[in-house]
Amino acid sequence: MTVGVGIIGTGVMGSDHARLLAGAVSGAALTAVFDVDQQRAAAVAGSAGSARALADPIELIHDDAVDAVLVASSDPTHEAFVLASIAAGKPVLCEKPLAPTVDGCLRILDAEAASGRRLVSVGFMRRYDPGYVDMKTILDSGEIGAALVLHCVHRNASAPASRFRGDVITNSAVHEIDLARWLLDDEIVAASVYTPRAGATRDIQILVLESATGVLVDIEVFVNARYGYDVRCELVGEEGSVSLDAAPATELRRAGMAGRRLPGDWRPRFAEAYRRELQDWIERLRNNRNPGGADGWDGYSATAVAQACVAALETNTRQEVKLTAKPHLYA
Amino acid sequence: MTVGVGIIGTGVMGSDHARLLAGAVSGAALTAVFDVDQQRAAAVAGSAGSARALADPIELIHDDAVDAVLVASSDPTHEAFVLASIAAGKPVLCEKPLAPTVDGCLRILDAEAASGRRLVSVGFMRRYDPGYVDMKTILDSGEIGAALVLHCVHRNASAPASRFRGDVITNSAVHEIDLARWLLDDEIVAASVYTPRAGATRDIQILVLESATGVLVDIEVFVNARYGYDVRCELVGEEGSVSLDAAPATELRRAGMAGRRLPGDWRPRFAEAYRRELQDWIERLRNNRNPGGADGWDGYSATAVAQACVAALETNTRQEVKLTAKPHLYA
Amino acid sequence: MTVGVGIIGTGVMGSDHARLLAGAVSGAALTAVFDVDQQRAAAVAGSAGSARALADPIELIHDDAVDAVLVASSDPTHEAFVLASIAAGKPVLCEKPLAPTVDGCLRILDAEAASGRRLVSVGFMRRYDPGYVDMKTILDSGEIGAALVLHCVHRNASAPASRFRGDVITNSAVHEIDLARWLLDDEIVAASVYTPRAGATRDIQILVLESATGVLVDIEVFVNARYGYDVRCELVGEEGSVSLDAAPATELRRAGMAGRRLPGDWRPRFAEAYRRELQDWIERLRNNRNPGGADGWDGYSATAVAQACVAALETNTRQEVKLTAKPHLYA
Amino acid sequence: MTVGVGIIGTGVMGSDHARLLAGAVSGAALTAVFDVDQQRAAAVAGSAGSARALADPIELIHDDAVDAVLVASSDPTHEAFVLASIAAGKPVLCEKPLAPTVDGCLRILDAEAASGRRLVSVGFMRRYDPGYVDMKTILDSGEIGAALVLHCVHRNASAPASRFRGDVITNSAVHEIDLARWLLDDEIVAASVYTPRAGATRDIQILVLESATGVLVDIEVFVNARYGYDVRCELVGEEGSVSLDAAPATELRRAGMAGRRLPGDWRPRFAEAYRRELQDWIERLRNNRNPGGADGWDGYSATAVAQACVAALETNTRQEVKLTAKPHLYA
Repeated sequence: MTVGVGIIGTGVMGSDHARLLAGAVSGAALTAVFDVDQQRAAAVAGSAGSARALADPIELIHDDAVDAVLVASSDPTHEAFVLASIAAGKPVLCEKPLAPTVDGCLRILDAEAASGRRLVSVGFMRRYDPGYVDMKTILDSGEIGAALVLHCVHRNASAPASRFRGDVITNSAVHEIDLARWLLDDEIVAASVYTPRAGATRDIQILVLESATGVLVDIEVFVNARYGYDVRCELVGEEGSVSLDAAPATELRRAGMAGRRLPGDWRPRFAEAYRRELQDWIERLRNNRNPGGADGWDGYSATAVAQACVAALETNTRQEVKLTAKPHLYA
Repeated sequence: MTVGVGIIGTGVMGSDHARLLAGAVSGAALTAVFDVDQQRAAAVAGSAGSARALADPIELIHDDAVDAVLVASSDPTHEAFVLASIAAGKPVLCEKPLAPTVDGCLRILDAEAASGRRLVSVGFMRRYDPGYVDMKTILDSGEIGAALVLHCVHRNASAPASRFRGDVITNSAVHEIDLARWLLDDEIVAASVYTPRAGATRDIQILVLESATGVLVDIEVFVNARYGYDVRCELVGEEGSVSLDAAPATELRRAGMAGRRLPGDWRPRFAEAYRRELQDWIERLRNNRNPGGADGWDGYSATAVAQACVAALETNTRQEVKLTAKPHLYA
Repeated sequence: MTVGVGIIGTGVMGSDHARLLAGAVSGAALTAVFDVDQQRAAAVAGSAGSARALADPIELIHDDAVDAVLVASSDPTHEAFVLASIAAGKPVLCEKPLAPTVDGCLRILDAEAASGRRLVSVGFMRRYDPGYVDMKTILDSGEIGAALVLHCVHRNASAPASRFRGDVITNSAVHEIDLARWLLDDEIVAASVYTPRAGATRDIQILVLESATGVLVDIEVFVNARYGYDVRCELVGEEGSVSLDAAPATELRRAGMAGRRLPGDWRPRFAEAYRRELQDWIERLRNNRNPGGADGWDGYSATAVAQACVAALETNTRQEVKLTAKPHLYA
Repeated sequence: MTVGVGIIGTGVMGSDHARLLAGAVSGAALTAVFDVDQQRAAAVAGSAGSARALADPIELIHDDAVDAVLVASSDPTHEAFVLASIAAGKPVLCEKPLAPTVDGCLRILDAEAASGRRLVSVGFMRRYDPGYVDMKTILDSGEIGAALVLHCVHRNASAPASRFRGDVITNSAVHEIDLARWLLDDEIVAASVYTPRAGATRDIQILVLESATGVLVDIEVFVNARYGYDVRCELVGEEGSVSLDAAPATELRRAGMAGRRLPGDWRPRFAEAYRRELQDWIERLRNNRNPGGADGWDGYSATAVAQACVAALETNTRQEVKLTAKPHLYA
């Protein structure tokens, strides 16, 4: 069985997914795409062989050739497309955030619970990165003992000014928020935010998160680091630590320096994670298994923590995170 | 179009290829398998969905559901299966060596030339490893200047005693021989071999190869290194150098040490290279393009150099490599 | 001219200093030692050739063969010996802390100011570590732009239970407090402290310090990390970052791992810093120059910040650091 | 007791030694210097306090204020000054080479044997480098098993054209020759030399040395590597390996790269080795112990192996090294 996938949104992320589905994932076929920019949609459809560019995203969701929906459109549209996919009874993989607001996420949780089936996945692709998977395997093996502290650094080379302040959290740090929850198998219950040398932009922040079981997570997120894209972390346990710094395998010695090149953005760093995420999504659909990766609850919780961080940033106080009761569907 | 692949030989390599073709390569279907151990063949066929285990390898090559053949059987059988694939007009990807003898390789070159088409690929998968590709990109960019020396280390944790002496070269060092030829875009013209503290086993050797344009390649190959699988190299140019040491992305700090785990064998190290090799093979077949990677000539040249190295080992003298004229097909 | 040095306190630190002064520092002679354990003092004196073990520390300070005093006795005794050295008009290098209380430090500042001369040095030896010096040189060169954040990790393999809670700060983190002040050429003005999974021991803490110019400093200090002694940091600027992780120069590949050994405690890590600290102290004395390294003001400020951190730990609130006006002597 | 040292030759090496003896070595005093450039000698004497610049090197050797002689003059003069020091009964530390010719070295061995005392040291300072010492400690501990292969890389950023061909060996590779002998506690018995892309300059060579017990040593020596000074090695044993790559402790992330700076020449890399070499020399003299480090025999053997390498380079054949019987003095 080949899974027919329709993609809503063919910008940077969506067209990357289209390329992978058409040429690097086993068992999948890209069958339909939609984008508000119809030319862009047509170009992506054309490059993928037999895919059609459709004029309406809801039509795409209901198209017979679409077995599963991938949502990569702008953040505010996620909720509506995910709800429509649930209504159509179709599995949907939504790029983060599941929805920008806590209320939007809760509406999705309700709809999925009402459908009685696990249909929703959220594109926190780091859960598929071999490095992070290795880190989790080491933690779960017990060889570094129980987790105590997780240190994270997340640096983008540059970001548009519109991405500063709260967006630094909701757009960038949210990956570490999900990472911490997944790695530690724990919920975040409180957040504090510090900003150095803080002008109005606040393009660099330090978040201190506290988990339900008492693990501390500190995150430096810097969206204008200039020198390159650089994402690292260290997990400290009672008996040891494990660090992740996925530099390229080659080391260059040239002009007085021995070093490794850093990528300009996240795509080279996480290319393999995206491919594995899609392959796993397709493979589970083909085998009638529940989707893996981040589910609707994870999408909700990440948004709730991110909103608490934004409040902490704006009020300069520690904020507690209040989560709703976890529905049985996600047990 | 989906490419139907038949695999001859379902040992370690063949069953790994079967798994990739069935679940990680876009556009391919595993349709038939053969192995001298019919139970093993049946198990691999069963795990891949619709593949059939056939009783005869030549029958497999001619099967209508087999668009392309993958040869992963024992080394002495390679020549016959590659020749039969050429005779059937089907693309064939053969695990190294193309053939264990220079004469066998030449018979394949003749047959492929007579067919008038590029059908043969040799599974020197390192050409698809992202690290080596990065290395070649850096060399070709000119930023380290013209190549002068290539240092290679190839260590296996252990090898059966039968794999010592000449097999150290033909089985292990042959990867570096192909690597050097591909990276430098050059032929090897002479070889010397040194053995330290040499008992009868000669499980560790140093090869010094000379290329046609005067680049030196030294290779330490050690098939009983015990501590782990460890493959590295450094390419030195007139302006700089580039090194490859593909350790895992995670660093563990534990019990007085900060370090990285080494794999036990080559499979984790080159898993991604194998996947890319197969994906590229399938994608080119689907698009009616010539196969990429190592071709028949590369397979022949690698065997010729390996045989010169074996002669150098046995006679303790420098051996020149005499290659036949390169057929137009490989220009 | 040879500088005669008297050492008060010949425990681990004092006997190390004695060994260096007797055999690895140019222009110095160890002339006298005192310890409450007279046998220990005699042994150290005997190993250094012509040094005498004296029965009274004040007598040592006034001894004619003592040109300069090194205080390495227990923390509560520092103040008295430093004050006595000032009273005797003799240069004194005091191991950290200058005094355990802010008031004690202020009494020393007053006495030194009254003497009209710079006599006091505090043994924050990291200022002489080649790695930290290199870091400061890079920051001061401007090539990473203005400092924004300093991340520090300070892990001891183990500490006696009596060293937990506040002592974690005053004994271990105080090195990072001085380091941050020196590296950034800035004062710390506020401190917050977080403790993960916090039992009563609080042997691991995260300190968040804010500097006067708005740089953030986060410090993980973990005095019971078990796997080894491990001190690292990363300084992030507007254009780049510089990290320090002074692993040994040798990498070992053995038993499935490629890695570097970590020391069991601080002595191997900072051996060279101690030697350079002493050599610089002696060289400046010989040349009638003011002492380098941390001065009395630095000792006072470090204690003031450490006390604010202890208050932040105990009250679970952010604490501001109130410093007295800086005396002209330290301008 | 303070050891008065006279230095013959105050070029780059000699003035560095003068600076160390005057300001970084315990128990030493620089008392006299000689250089063919009298102004340079006077400047060095002046910077070191009480040292005198003498007009004649033999006069210096016999000067009453000179307890020990350090020879850092041009290579062809070494033999005469070492012989004169032996004749005067004074310990002498001679920069490498002990003498440029095997015959010259043998004359020194004879003279030292005749004197009945160990007076001669050769400045192979790598034996004092903490990294190499660590490497030897690891080998001697048995944890990597018996040595099989030593891989060395020795790259200088640039060298005058006059330093090419044979000088590449006698000036640069000779350090690895001594290193191999010392590390392995073994003699070199044969040598082969390869040159890549060999123009007349032969500024890059690969030496393959064979030890008496059958260890192989390969050395890439490249005196015009341009990108920086870079000296590394890996020692492979039956159970593991140990590598040395003494990059600076700081890592810089800037302009798309994460890396470490390489020094422009050997002085930063081996500064600590030179200091320890001198301190050990002085300390042993003060305690009437035989000198440590490389002795006369080591100096002779290094020159003999280097000459065999030069012959191998010039004749393009494997050369055996014939050593004289080892005098009892060096047992």
